[in-house]
Amino acid sequence: MVKIKLLLMIFILSLNNFSWAIEKDTVKYVNASLLTLINKAQPDSSFFQRLDERKYSDLTPIVRRYFTYSTGLAIAFQTNSRNISARWETESNKFGVNTTLIAQTGLDLYIRRNGQWVFAGVGTPNYGVNHQSKLVENMNDSLKECLLYLPLFTKVKNLDIGVDKDALLEALPVPFRHKIVVIGSSITHGASAGRPGMAYPARLNRALGFEFPNLGISGQCKLDAFLAHIAADTEADAFVLDVFSNPSPQQIEERLERFVAIIRKKHLDTPLIFLQTEVRDSGVFNEKIRKYEYEKRIAAELGIKKLEQLGYKNIYFVNPGMDLGTDHQATVDGVHPSDLGFERILDKLQPVLVKILHRHKIR
Amino acid sequence: MVKIKLLLMIFILSLNNFSWAIEKDTVKYVNASLLTLINKAQPDSSFFQRLDERKYSDLTPIVRRYFTYSTGLAIAFQTNSRNISARWETESNKFGVNTTLIAQTGLDLYIRRNGQWVFAGVGTPNYGVNHQSKLVENMNDSLKECLLYLPLFTKVKNLDIGVDKDALLEALPVPFRHKIVVIGSSITHGASAGRPGMAYPARLNRALGFEFPNLGISGQCKLDAFLAHIAADTEADAFVLDVFSNPSPQQIEERLERFVAIIRKKHLDTPLIFLQTEVRDSGVFNEKIRKYEYEKRIAAELGIKKLEQLGYKNIYFVNPGMDLGTDHQATVDGVHPSDLGFERILDKLQPVLVKILHRHKIR
Repeated sequence: MVKIKLLLMIFILSLNNFSWAIEKDTVKYVNASLLTLINKAQPDSSFFQRLDERKYSDLTPIVRRYFTYSTGLAIAFQTNSRNISARWETESNKFGVNTTLIAQTGLDLYIRRNGQWVFAGVGTPNYGVNHQSKLVENMNDSLKECLLYLPLFTKVKNLDIGVDKDALLEALPVPFRHKIVVIGSSITHGASAGRPGMAYPARLNRALGFEFPNLGISGQCKLDAFLAHIAADTEADAFVLDVFSNPSPQQIEERLERFVAIIRKKHLDTPLIFLQTEVRDSGVFNEKIRKYEYEKRIAAELGIKKLEQLGYKNIYFVNPGMDLGTDHQATVDGVHPSDLGFERILDKLQPVLVKILHRHKIR
Repeated sequence: MVKIKLLLMIFILSLNNFSWAIEKDTVKYVNASLLTLINKAQPDSSFFQRLDERKYSDLTPIVRRYFTYSTGLAIAFQTNSRNISARWETESNKFGVNTTLIAQTGLDLYIRRNGQWVFAGVGTPNYGVNHQSKLVENMNDSLKECLLYLPLFTKVKNLDIGVDKDALLEALPVPFRHKIVVIGSSITHGASAGRPGMAYPARLNRALGFEFPNLGISGQCKLDAFLAHIAADTEADAFVLDVFSNPSPQQIEERLERFVAIIRKKHLDTPLIFLQTEVRDSGVFNEKIRKYEYEKRIAAELGIKKLEQLGYKNIYFVNPGMDLGTDHQATVDGVHPSDLGFERILDKLQPVLVKILHRHKIR
């Protein structure tokens, strides 16, 4: 029995070597850290992170972990390869049940065609930490500008991009202008997008041609001072603030003014575009949730009014900021928008955002 | 050390007993098999299955397994409980990476309000086989008609519905008329719906008020004779046939006529509503996929023409049958529609279906 197992093992190992040898001959891997990173909030951090969480001593453990994630980041490169693949390593995670694994730990590739970023393929993860996947195959050999979104809900430890052995693969100059930093809840973080590039900040990134760093921290975006300090430290042409989804009505009342005051110390007149939170489908029949969510929205409205009374300028309040429609079919679980929810949100939000940004010559 | 472990164990066990005792006092469970089952394709089968796969000797192992799944089924009941919960047991599965776990192994509750089925809450599964979840809480105590969709991608071994101890919970008379049986690929099966009730047959079920048994078999719907025999054996007022997504162009050419002939032996004039397959986003840049998918769609068009030439009546061909729009943002992975994709499909498909069904006095 042991002998059979041993023989089987040798056979399997030899198979692995065999396929590996074939791939080695046809695929050339380049580490993503040699290419162009897009949508980074702060530059001085580990490559595959939005910011360096070690700079901040007062984060909660869960926020600290979230800031090690690759949420919203994308790699920009150009290649004339007919085939593009990837191998990447992520950290062991508890997977969410309301979001696909592709969105949580997978990759999402777009190629620029006639000025538009067009979906090309996903990197399919497995339930482990070492992933290898084709992204797209059998293309023509024209030179293509590529944008590869990284996982929304895990830390990426390493990423290699594979192209045909003889193909060109090189960094793309940053293909976006301006930087709109989005701070927010799980809705911003990307629950429950179908793939990494379908979270609403990523959709805005491609649609408007601006960088949209994603500082979503699921369930943890409660107007804490640490988050205001992070915003203050982050270069931005504007902030989009989904900061009324997670805090309680009381927290909104107590914390909003301090939150803005901290940001305003460094960002004297940067537009702060607050989004009213969604009307949650979880409150359609649940009277307690319905009342609580209503009180949150009222607290947000009053809070914004107070900011205006205090004389703060360039404060915007998009209300409704996340309009899911009226049929209660646009979330996965009563809270988190599906791609249908994000589409409905953007149908209303994007033109309003564009108008505000234009007013500030961000175009 | 052993002593501490033992004490800890006793403490934990006592905690468990404690919470169990509280729940036992406030929650009453009723087995779902005592309630009304909706969207069942054939009546003579295990309760939580679409049909009895043991009746068919020529199924492939994977199709045999799929037919043990609870795909498309729903439990109808009425209750005046303020809180509804569930505990259910599923089979150990390999989970798909392109669909949420909620859709694969979770539950999805709707409550009738002003004649409409309105989302009320999901049953959140875990990555194991024994699940327990609140569905909705803190409702008023009016009598409510409820529809609970079962998991799309697993076998349900048992399901208990929990309500307040003193509340009424009883079977609802079947709240739908007519039976439109949908046979199809993974797109019909429900990849990549966000929750069980968002697969397109389930959406049609609620929107039109007809039963829509779902005979989706991911990747396996290739115009095989066994599937035609199943259709022939299944009572239906009409069939919706997503049978051009999985087979090759050659298979379509070789098998379509036989497929229809077998069904027509039993269903002499039942409307057969064929859906042209989607234009796959996986073929935007992949020239091989683009060509192959184009050939499939041509084979489908020619096949339908031939059926008409052969004199078959009540054959409909909805083309495009699955219109995902033009922005390539409506699938999770280039193939499987997200809830956004299903919305776009139904925006076009539903009115066409209604028109065809009306013509046959199905209204």
